[in-house]
Amino acid sequence: MNKIKCGILGATGMVGQRYVSLLENHPWFEVTYLAASPRSAGKKYVDAVNEKWQMSTPIPDSVSDLVVGDANIVESAIDKCDFVFSALELEKDLIKKLEFDYAKSDIPVVSNCSAHRWTKDVPMLLPEVNSSHLDVLSEQKKSRGFEKGFVVVKPNCSIQSYICPMFALEKAGYKIDKAIITTLQASSGAGYPGVPSLGLLDNIIPFIGGEEEKSELEPSKILGRVVGGEIVEDNSIKISAHCNRVPVVDGHTACVSLSFKEKPIMEEIIKAWTNFSSVPQELNLPSAPKKPIIYSTEQDRPQPRKDRDSEGGMAVTIGRLRECKVFDYRFVGLSHNTIRGAAGGGILNAELLKAKNYL
Amino acid sequence: MNKIKCGILGATGMVGQRYVSLLENHPWFEVTYLAASPRSAGKKYVDAVNEKWQMSTPIPDSVSDLVVGDANIVESAIDKCDFVFSALELEKDLIKKLEFDYAKSDIPVVSNCSAHRWTKDVPMLLPEVNSSHLDVLSEQKKSRGFEKGFVVVKPNCSIQSYICPMFALEKAGYKIDKAIITTLQASSGAGYPGVPSLGLLDNIIPFIGGEEEKSELEPSKILGRVVGGEIVEDNSIKISAHCNRVPVVDGHTACVSLSFKEKPIMEEIIKAWTNFSSVPQELNLPSAPKKPIIYSTEQDRPQPRKDRDSEGGMAVTIGRLRECKVFDYRFVGLSHNTIRGAAGGGILNAELLKAKNYL
Amino acid sequence: MNKIKCGILGATGMVGQRYVSLLENHPWFEVTYLAASPRSAGKKYVDAVNEKWQMSTPIPDSVSDLVVGDANIVESAIDKCDFVFSALELEKDLIKKLEFDYAKSDIPVVSNCSAHRWTKDVPMLLPEVNSSHLDVLSEQKKSRGFEKGFVVVKPNCSIQSYICPMFALEKAGYKIDKAIITTLQASSGAGYPGVPSLGLLDNIIPFIGGEEEKSELEPSKILGRVVGGEIVEDNSIKISAHCNRVPVVDGHTACVSLSFKEKPIMEEIIKAWTNFSSVPQELNLPSAPKKPIIYSTEQDRPQPRKDRDSEGGMAVTIGRLRECKVFDYRFVGLSHNTIRGAAGGGILNAELLKAKNYL
Amino acid sequence: MNKIKCGILGATGMVGQRYVSLLENHPWFEVTYLAASPRSAGKKYVDAVNEKWQMSTPIPDSVSDLVVGDANIVESAIDKCDFVFSALELEKDLIKKLEFDYAKSDIPVVSNCSAHRWTKDVPMLLPEVNSSHLDVLSEQKKSRGFEKGFVVVKPNCSIQSYICPMFALEKAGYKIDKAIITTLQASSGAGYPGVPSLGLLDNIIPFIGGEEEKSELEPSKILGRVVGGEIVEDNSIKISAHCNRVPVVDGHTACVSLSFKEKPIMEEIIKAWTNFSSVPQELNLPSAPKKPIIYSTEQDRPQPRKDRDSEGGMAVTIGRLRECKVFDYRFVGLSHNTIRGAAGGGILNAELLKAKNYL
Repeated sequence: MNKIKCGILGATGMVGQRYVSLLENHPWFEVTYLAASPRSAGKKYVDAVNEKWQMSTPIPDSVSDLVVGDANIVESAIDKCDFVFSALELEKDLIKKLEFDYAKSDIPVVSNCSAHRWTKDVPMLLPEVNSSHLDVLSEQKKSRGFEKGFVVVKPNCSIQSYICPMFALEKAGYKIDKAIITTLQASSGAGYPGVPSLGLLDNIIPFIGGEEEKSELEPSKILGRVVGGEIVEDNSIKISAHCNRVPVVDGHTACVSLSFKEKPIMEEIIKAWTNFSSVPQELNLPSAPKKPIIYSTEQDRPQPRKDRDSEGGMAVTIGRLRECKVFDYRFVGLSHNTIRGAAGGGILNAELLKAKNYL
Repeated sequence: MNKIKCGILGATGMVGQRYVSLLENHPWFEVTYLAASPRSAGKKYVDAVNEKWQMSTPIPDSVSDLVVGDANIVESAIDKCDFVFSALELEKDLIKKLEFDYAKSDIPVVSNCSAHRWTKDVPMLLPEVNSSHLDVLSEQKKSRGFEKGFVVVKPNCSIQSYICPMFALEKAGYKIDKAIITTLQASSGAGYPGVPSLGLLDNIIPFIGGEEEKSELEPSKILGRVVGGEIVEDNSIKISAHCNRVPVVDGHTACVSLSFKEKPIMEEIIKAWTNFSSVPQELNLPSAPKKPIIYSTEQDRPQPRKDRDSEGGMAVTIGRLRECKVFDYRFVGLSHNTIRGAAGGGILNAELLKAKNYL
Repeated sequence: MNKIKCGILGATGMVGQRYVSLLENHPWFEVTYLAASPRSAGKKYVDAVNEKWQMSTPIPDSVSDLVVGDANIVESAIDKCDFVFSALELEKDLIKKLEFDYAKSDIPVVSNCSAHRWTKDVPMLLPEVNSSHLDVLSEQKKSRGFEKGFVVVKPNCSIQSYICPMFALEKAGYKIDKAIITTLQASSGAGYPGVPSLGLLDNIIPFIGGEEEKSELEPSKILGRVVGGEIVEDNSIKISAHCNRVPVVDGHTACVSLSFKEKPIMEEIIKAWTNFSSVPQELNLPSAPKKPIIYSTEQDRPQPRKDRDSEGGMAVTIGRLRECKVFDYRFVGLSHNTIRGAAGGGILNAELLKAKNYL
Repeated sequence: MNKIKCGILGATGMVGQRYVSLLENHPWFEVTYLAASPRSAGKKYVDAVNEKWQMSTPIPDSVSDLVVGDANIVESAIDKCDFVFSALELEKDLIKKLEFDYAKSDIPVVSNCSAHRWTKDVPMLLPEVNSSHLDVLSEQKKSRGFEKGFVVVKPNCSIQSYICPMFALEKAGYKIDKAIITTLQASSGAGYPGVPSLGLLDNIIPFIGGEEEKSELEPSKILGRVVGGEIVEDNSIKISAHCNRVPVVDGHTACVSLSFKEKPIMEEIIKAWTNFSSVPQELNLPSAPKKPIIYSTEQDRPQPRKDRDSEGGMAVTIGRLRECKVFDYRFVGLSHNTIRGAAGGGILNAELLKAKNYL
């Protein structure tokens, strides 16, 4: 099979680097185009990314010498790739326009950015949860005059560690009405250079700009339904999120207290998690974790360094399910923020799109 | 004035070391006796503590050459000191017996240990909150046949960062009914050797044995009232605590969501905190922070490394008061776990006892 | 091909865990026996290792339920495996005896321990450097009455980052006479629990017991020659090693200043390194890195987190070759201490033994 | 006594913040002027420094509301202060010019910057070592037309941990001819934001731009003599320095191997260090450590977190003196990089200047 050619916008940033790494040897996709800021444009990728390379494997030979394009110039991408992953680091309004411009030029955009997360006809995809949201794409194309192009986005990196297990419970019939969550988020979530080392040596920072808002609001769209060509939010779960930055390289942890409409018994919850399987598993997508949710029975897990790489960084690991003294139950969730929560999640979205014949 | 002579039981452990450091040049107390395990007994303190010394200032000359006694042998302490600070690291039942044995031998015990926290006639003191609990001491002495001796304890180190600000609100008339709390606790809270470095390099550990129970239950005794020679618990606040170990040397952080009986306005809360002052301040105790609660207006504070040392490590720093999407308000609290939360808190208890003529 | 059955002595420790991880899916070897202390004996491996598991991938299913044997009882291993990897954590003299006991019972021992490193007829193998030392095994067997059994050891984990590049230079004809080395060694090198977290948070420890001696002395045996059934040391290079423990999970870094008999030009050195290839590469051993030495041209490399996993953690990465103001040249070397420097190195030794028909 | 009024140029940076902290309650100096970049100028100090504040004590009330001046405009400082501490973060050539401009305007400059370190008539002061270099100031003033102004600088922060102990040996008559040094330098040495957290989580960086050159060359000027109104370098010690950045907040560690003209015995070296005392001690300068060199006999010291604060961060702590297998002796030295190595060192220079009637 001929591989589908893909580009990466924002290829020199942290998420861009992770895309480059994860797509080495991908069975369906082949990186043929890399774009970044005008400052990087014209350089070989290896020279543009240089000391900023943060992955633990070297830059793949296949992209090392690719000459980086200017991500602001849509024309540069034409004929170079069939679709793009967007990990742009620009102002929101610029990204909004630029992603639609790529779509207009027949280049579908699988985005990691927050710019279009609240655009009504843009699905915020989490394939295990809401693959049905792809239904809005026909409306998106029609109303915006896109022919082959379109835009899909993915949610914020802080979300997967709690929204996947919460959705699994809802799907199994255990309706949640309230969640109070505290996240302990990894340094890589802030990109590079991101948080200064003096901020995370012998320290934690109990604030991440804009993160609590995203963590609280995005679930309502993710869990929504497509009605009349638009995604209608589901606001039935009230969420409070406290977001902290901690001295961890990769892996966001969430401490979650849940209140249910009707309190299930503990065994039902564990069963709902361990049995959870969804569209990516049915379609056998290359990046889909065999088990999207892993329940760990050890008393002190999940831990970032030990659990983030489960199933290639695509599984969410849950542990410490126990009674909550105020709500019904509480647990700890963990997911890899730059794999499941960013580039890996984006690739899974693209795989879903391919399997559903959108690419 | 002649200084009061004090001993330290468990003098070689982390909390014991902190006592030794903080008591250097104390205006009222003088360290004249150090005791530890039989393994250390008979050695000079400097040799017994050796590589385990974790403070950032050297061992004070005044105690460096003191010959360490065996903490299990009460007689060794007699005539060597007027009272003892207990930071014993033994089995709970042994500590329980031993602390009462010291009391029986006319040596008052100001304890940092959890052993007697739930003994009905032993006050769990937090001087800004419940100095009135000293009233049970007369009953304790009488019923147990102590003449000059007695035992007081202090609460767990995880508590001060949220119980002080919660009490300040209750005292100001804003009744709290529920609190969901996530703590990010420093390595020093586990003592030495404590948590292995592999557990806290590029990692956090979402579990601390017994800590959630203490964090949830102790407030009910702290906030209780003395009735008929006993402390009667106040269970009006339901508390859920998620406790995590994070790569920080000193300073426990708490992310707190609060539900009130009646929701106050934000300004009232901040005013209640910044105006908060209590018995230690009125008595002008040497270790009492001038402001027991400091409210920081910066958006990313409190942070352990920057705020733990406020007022010599005895103040609690609060920040990020904001609306909670599920409860009423949320905030971040921080206190120094081995100063305010352990040795410094113990010293403040002793100062209160002295000011109230118990010592 | 039927796989060779191997056992792991000390299977619950850090190095033992690494063996277990690396041997999952090994093309030649299959783990059929795990042994540890009497405390662990009789338990399933998963229960024995429990919270101590430090790898970032889960315990392989194939060994998870193996019942752990008592490593002190040689008989337990008989018929269970064809040879053993030894990562025993016992007193030196006990290990010495025990490893020979296994050999006497026809079970070859591929050891990671230091016990037999200075036994004259036991080769201290680094396959790229001294595979010829296997020649002493015939004498070892004869003089000690072993039939099928024997003992080989590997050098200390601190050594590979500088001895491989130094040997490559010697082999290319550039004779070194002096080396002053400072190592920055990872926490995992101390095993588990190893260094307390308070020792490595906002801190480094400029001392590792016994490490400087090993780092200075072992090269003389490694670089020696087999003469008359014994390994005769080569003391022609004087080495001074300063060993430090730093807050890094895996990966030992070495800062090296070299003095040559005759100073080569810089290009010759780089060429000697990049062209270096040896017996494991010729034999195409499964764990052999294609390039045993990788020279990085970036100005700030090698770095532990970014370079330790090169070639599956089996390559040594070198960088920053530059003139030394006192000696001739200096450079920075890095190797993965629990892969190349421990379990991976042991497996490479076993592969060499198999390829040379000793197993 | 009326305090001398001083200004701080570059007051919002890491070193500037340290000056502000250390000068709170200084017995001789009073901060009356703060200057920084045009971006900060016109703001209150508290607002200009804001989240960048990295000290563990709060901004002193006495300077919190000072309106920050533009450091580029010399006139702003006139009448506001009697001299300035310079911690400017600008291009070298700009600093060079600016510092001389302040001097020309009768404002002496006590600089922390590297710009004038190699200007022949500018002393690079380390008061324990070369207070006699002040003699060039008369020539500096005359030849450059300064009336009351002048410029003195201090050496790089990496130097104090080895140059003080080396000088103490030379002064005691033990002539050194070669030194190979590896430094493990703290994050704060790179300023703020400085090194990204991803660079120092589970990692070290074996490269600091320009640092090895400074570490190797500056000692020759520091140890030089004043001849004919110029400082003539002493190049008799050859130094090689490997500089690494490690995950430590404050405190630079140096691993040092020394070769002597004639090898002293170990006791002589320790005696030379413990007896070392110099001009700042004789003059009883307020910031002078009572013991400029502390020799620690514990086998695993000095350590950054435990020893950097010795004598208020102004002492150098030495440990692990032992034979070197290649040179004569080796040891580990440690000093606080932003106190002794920067702001504290600058203040000591100013105190020396005051005591010698230059201020």
